[in-house]
Formats: sequence, structure tokens, C-alpha cells
Amino acid sequence: MDNLGLIGMASIVTAGLTITIGSIAPALGEGKALAQALTAIAQQPDQAKDITRTLFVGMALVESTAIYCFVITLILIFANPFWAYFVEKAAG
Amino acid sequence: MDNLGLIGMASIVTAGLTITIGSIAPALGEGKALAQALTAIAQQPDQAKDITRTLFVGMALVESTAIYCFVITLILIFANPFWAYFVEKAAG
Amino acid sequence: MDNLGLIGMASIVTAGLTITIGSIAPALGEGKALAQALTAIAQQPDQAKDITRTLFVGMALVESTAIYCFVITLILIFANPFWAYFVEKAAG
Repeated sequence: MDNLGLIGMASIVTAGLTITIGSIAPALGEGKALAQALTAIAQQPDQAKDITRTLFVGMALVESTAIYCFVITLILIFANPFWAYFVEKAAG
Repeated sequence: MDNLGLIGMASIVTAGLTITIGSIAPALGEGKALAQALTAIAQQPDQAKDITRTLFVGMALVESTAIYCFVITLILIFANPFWAYFVEKAAG
Repeated sequence: MDNLGLIGMASIVTAGLTITIGSIAPALGEGKALAQALTAIAQQPDQAKDITRTLFVGMALVESTAIYCFVITLILIFANPFWAYFVEKAAG
């Protein structure tokens, strides 16, 4: 097990953990907001349009935290500078 | 156990953990939203159409976090650049 | 213990854990939604048809997260590219 193997293994494991743990909170948060929005529509049907619009703009913001994790995961897999360095060094 | 074995093992274990833990929160969040939607329909049957539409658009957003994990899992199994590098190195 | 044994062991353990832990949350989420659906039908019997339809479409969405785990498990067992590589290498 040399540097290349170590860096590769760490990248794989971290990539998986990043998107995994990173998606827990957004999913729970969005689920909670969605549930509350439906209760609000039932309570105040005249405001359904307003509630729905606020819900989706808000969910997009919550979703952004999941997207950050997704981007970092893709960077770790496909554009990892540490990996690139050791590959270059191993090549010559 | 060389680099290839190590990378392969890490990929398999990480792939499994990613989709496993990554599906917990979306499932719980969607379940909660769905339960609330049914209560909302029972409270305000006239708004059933509005509530259902909001529910399914919202659930699609929550589902997206599970899909991120699924995509990363498939990448780790079938398009793993670290694995590809070591296979190529082992081949020649 | 060489690479083949290691990869085989990791695949088996991960396959089991994936479907096991991956089915916890969908089952809980669907159970919660179903329980709420029954309460909702009891509250508003006239809407039973609407509630049931929403319930089953929603449960299908929640079920999809369990299906992701199932697919990954089957891939790890029957179409594992890491295992295929080492088997081929051991063959010649």
C-alpha cells in the first residue's frame, strides 16, 4: 500500500460519506417543510398559491446544501488534485 | 493485498454504505410529508387537488437527494477512475 | 487471503448490509403514512377514494428508495465488476 493506493482509498470512502451524510439533513428538513406547507394549505386554502411559491423557493435553498455535498463528491472522484499529483509523480 | 484489492474493497463497501445511509433520510422525510398530506386532505377535501400536486412536486425534490446518492453509488461501481487507473497500471 | 477472497467477502457483507439497513427507513416511512391514511379515512369517509389514491402513489415514491438499495445489492452479487476482474485475472 503506497501513497497512490492510500489517496485513492481515502477519496473513495470520503466521496461516499460526503454525499451520504450530507443528504440526511436536507432530506429531513425538506420533508418537514413540505409537511408543514400541506397543513398550512389545509388551514388557509385561499393562500394556497402563496404558500406553494414560498415552499418551493425555500426548498430550493435547502436543496442547495445537498448540492454543495454533491459537487464536492464529484470533485473528489473526478478532479482530485491530490490524486493528480501522485499519479503525475508515479508516471515519471 | 495490493492497491487493486484495496481500491476494489473500498469501492464495494463505500458503494453499499452510500445508497444505504443515503436513502434513510429521504424515505423518512417523504413518509412524513405523505402522512401530513393525507391529514390535510381529510381536513380540507376541497383542496385535495392542490395538496396532492404540492405533495408530489415536493416529494420529487426530496427524492433528488436519494438520487444523488444513487448516482454516486453507480459511479463508484461502474465508472470509478481510481479503479480504472490501477487496472490500467496492472495491465501494463 | 488474497484479493479474490477479500473482494468476495466485502461484496457479500456489503450486499447484506445494504438491503438490510436500506429497508429500515422506507418501511418506517410507509408505515407512518399508512397509519395516517387510516386516520384520515376515518375522519373524512367521503374522501376515501382520494386519500387512498394519494397514499399509494406516495408510497410508490417512498418505496423507490428501497428499490435503489435492492438494485445495488443485486449488482454487488451478480454483476460485480471488481469480482469479475479478479476472477478473470486468476483464470489466466
